[in-house]
Amino acid sequence: RSGEMAKLAQLIDNDVFRAYATYATIVLLKMMLMSLITAYFRITRKAFVNPEDTASFGKGESAKKFLRTDPDVERVRRGHLNDLENIVPFLGIGLLYALSGPELSTALLHFRIFTGARVLHTFAYLIPLPQPGRGLSWAVGYAVTISMAYKVLKTGLFL
Amino acid sequence: RSGEMAKLAQLIDNDVFRAYATYATIVLLKMMLMSLITAYFRITRKAFVNPEDTASFGKGESAKKFLRTDPDVERVRRGHLNDLENIVPFLGIGLLYALSGPELSTALLHFRIFTGARVLHTFAYLIPLPQPGRGLSWAVGYAVTISMAYKVLKTGLFL
Amino acid sequence: RSGEMAKLAQLIDNDVFRAYATYATIVLLKMMLMSLITAYFRITRKAFVNPEDTASFGKGESAKKFLRTDPDVERVRRGHLNDLENIVPFLGIGLLYALSGPELSTALLHFRIFTGARVLHTFAYLIPLPQPGRGLSWAVGYAVTISMAYKVLKTGLFL
Repeated sequence: RSGEMAKLAQLIDNDVFRAYATYATIVLLKMMLMSLITAYFRITRKAFVNPEDTASFGKGESAKKFLRTDPDVERVRRGHLNDLENIVPFLGIGLLYALSGPELSTALLHFRIFTGARVLHTFAYLIPLPQPGRGLSWAVGYAVTISMAYKVLKTGLFL
Repeated sequence: RSGEMAKLAQLIDNDVFRAYATYATIVLLKMMLMSLITAYFRITRKAFVNPEDTASFGKGESAKKFLRTDPDVERVRRGHLNDLENIVPFLGIGLLYALSGPELSTALLHFRIFTGARVLHTFAYLIPLPQPGRGLSWAVGYAVTISMAYKVLKTGLFL
Repeated sequence: RSGEMAKLAQLIDNDVFRAYATYATIVLLKMMLMSLITAYFRITRKAFVNPEDTASFGKGESAKKFLRTDPDVERVRRGHLNDLENIVPFLGIGLLYALSGPELSTALLHFRIFTGARVLHTFAYLIPLPQPGRGLSWAVGYAVTISMAYKVLKTGLFL
């Protein structure tokens, strides 16, 4: 048992893997924040989608009018879905990349740029910034993931 | 080769990692069930979104009337998306947490509470239960994930 | 440090793990392609959802008419969401399956069928092919994931 634990510890003690663990966790926490922002806008804009969520506003028509879409709520939800679409590939490809033996400095560059790009993307979406702010921040994160995928396939291709 | 296999076996033989593998698989199977429930409601409520899905109901207007949204279908789909938004962070952060050397009992507590909370969330969404049933089950899973993220960052922060 | 690196190298050098890394990366790249196809249809169909995305088409009513939904855009988006719903379970369960010590030939069979099924699913969705083309390709990928989940739970169940 303690031998196995030591083996696992070696994985988490590896610098590249620790960097991956750090940035993957940060970017997932950022994504989870979108749920809180959605809830915040649903409550302040009084815009809900489930009838049981408006029960506290009274019965019948008085509650029903809060079952509506709100532009701010929908905007956060689009940002959240865009996070899912882009952070899931980063998680999967990034893990394999971290295990493919990259230079620490190169790996840090990938992880930091991706994380920075996704934080910028969220600000660009929620403020919102004029285009191409959101488009560029999306593209940078996308390009970083492609670059890591290339390294993974170059190192370990096994079809 | 057999040496490598032994090395991998050590990973899957580690108790914390096995517990992670078990609960991650269970919670993913639960999420996959949402696809079947969506299909069930689409077929029983005759509410489809793709024209090619209604071709067996005849041509023209007779089929077109089944291209519609249905409250039950939309409810399951919201539950499915909420699963994605919450289970993806659990998968990523939970894996890193399992590799960060937690006590087995503490790890089991995290995995079991998260899995239980997500099962409750699904029931709360589909029945539906009055609020704050769904809200609380969502918050418990969210808090468990935050707790695991804290452990990962405390153990292995590498910025 | 070099000892740890060697340990990691053993993981990526393992044939089953390399096969997982290869197919997981391919299927994630395929999913990422959906973002580009969505962008392509949004631009060619001039159908946007964010006001800031139509600013280059002029101001006021002239730009506002491009804030609309388009059947082709919505179709790609549904395919993208279906990818997320099915590829996330494959990533998580597939990783655990790869670590559960399957035969290389069995593992390759699972990974190849899943990847082929998801590529077919995308073509079936985007062309679109008549049903049950899309339904079958979805079901095949689903069944492969269930099969891997069964192996994971049989090998390492720890509740």
